[in-house]
Amino acid sequence: MNCLLLPIENFSSDAAYIAELSQINHVNKVLTAKVGDTLKIGQMGGYLGTAVIESIRSDAIELRDIQLTTAPPPKLDLTVVLALPRPKVLRRLIMDMTALGVRDIILINSYRTQKSYWQSPMLERLDEFVLEGLQQGVDTIAPRITLQKRFKPFVEDELAGLVTNRAIVAHPYSELSFTQYLQQPPSLGLPSLVCIGSEGGWIDYEIALLATQGCAAVTIGSRILRTEAAVNVILGQWLLS
Amino acid sequence: MNCLLLPIENFSSDAAYIAELSQINHVNKVLTAKVGDTLKIGQMGGYLGTAVIESIRSDAIELRDIQLTTAPPPKLDLTVVLALPRPKVLRRLIMDMTALGVRDIILINSYRTQKSYWQSPMLERLDEFVLEGLQQGVDTIAPRITLQKRFKPFVEDELAGLVTNRAIVAHPYSELSFTQYLQQPPSLGLPSLVCIGSEGGWIDYEIALLATQGCAAVTIGSRILRTEAAVNVILGQWLLS
Repeated sequence: MNCLLLPIENFSSDAAYIAELSQINHVNKVLTAKVGDTLKIGQMGGYLGTAVIESIRSDAIELRDIQLTTAPPPKLDLTVVLALPRPKVLRRLIMDMTALGVRDIILINSYRTQKSYWQSPMLERLDEFVLEGLQQGVDTIAPRITLQKRFKPFVEDELAGLVTNRAIVAHPYSELSFTQYLQQPPSLGLPSLVCIGSEGGWIDYEIALLATQGCAAVTIGSRILRTEAAVNVILGQWLLS
Repeated sequence: MNCLLLPIENFSSDAAYIAELSQINHVNKVLTAKVGDTLKIGQMGGYLGTAVIESIRSDAIELRDIQLTTAPPPKLDLTVVLALPRPKVLRRLIMDMTALGVRDIILINSYRTQKSYWQSPMLERLDEFVLEGLQQGVDTIAPRITLQKRFKPFVEDELAGLVTNRAIVAHPYSELSFTQYLQQPPSLGLPSLVCIGSEGGWIDYEIALLATQGCAAVTIGSRILRTEAAVNVILGQWLLS
């Protein structure tokens, strides 16, 4: 946690309190902070700033001198359409995409998504993973997360309407590299929508259907990366552009 | 596993065998391959190609028709100096750096590295994580991994000698962005050495000492990423350049 993000209902005029156990533990065990120390905080959906510890109890930490003066960093103008990954890696993927500042995340079914993934209890915990990601990335604005269990109707009927600039699908077997794509004239800048497969990637039918909706298949090289690594490599372009 | 990497001693003229349990399990349970099926294989330190399954036993899979005709992808001209991370994330970091093709990895002590990390049994398992990374990234050449338990003597006496082009240290609080650094004339291309901190990053003393040896501090933005995410975002520049 690089900041402690609190819901708006925990604030009152110049005071606030922490009631979330993971945050209390962080203050006590990681920061080893004491009464009078200053913490980096944020208001969920609002501003970032600091607060001073007024008191520490086992179930609540009271804060005073609330200074919320810094706007959160801008969201990336980016929708990520991600094939629902194994539950085990879902937490880190949601955390990382949130920390990177993705504005919209769409978890979609794909041929190589196992049906059991849609029953995972991890899907009930997305808000928790988003909170972790915001506290990691020092942001207050949650991404919008949508689940799309049906690939074909989503791609055919909805996807094109979500593309504000242009769209790509990451595909190791494409002839076109992401770098070549970005350098092709006319220079349209970074795409506004990126489709990323999960372990095993997309099948040809999926790549072809995405192409009919304007998604250009691009590769980041012959080296095949874990989904998490690929997401960070690709989305890193938005941080470094 | 996107290929099965076998040690040279498992090969004989036109045959080979798999004896490693994790690989046998992968063939049986993930690939659900049968006698007569073709597998993607590689020879550790050698070439990549295919083989046909001759027989499957619980403790060994025999292969025939060995075709090793593809050279492994080139290594990145890159040394990563990484502050030794928490043991829990070491596996994925070594896997990812290996899959990305880093040629040299130096795990170094830093002020924010807990002493206990150096006693972790995970440090005995680096070869295993490298094998996982090579099989993920479809490569056969292991990175060189060195442990440096003493920050100051390493930085003062050895670091400059390892830099073939130029060097950076990732630091969220630098004024200079990585992108600005790359665009500064004269254009020297990507650095050949990158220092990356672990949770909590580098302290000012470390940044200053690295600067005396020519490491420019660069930031990838105000958003603070998990070490794994930062490594993939930064090293992604080598894949996408």
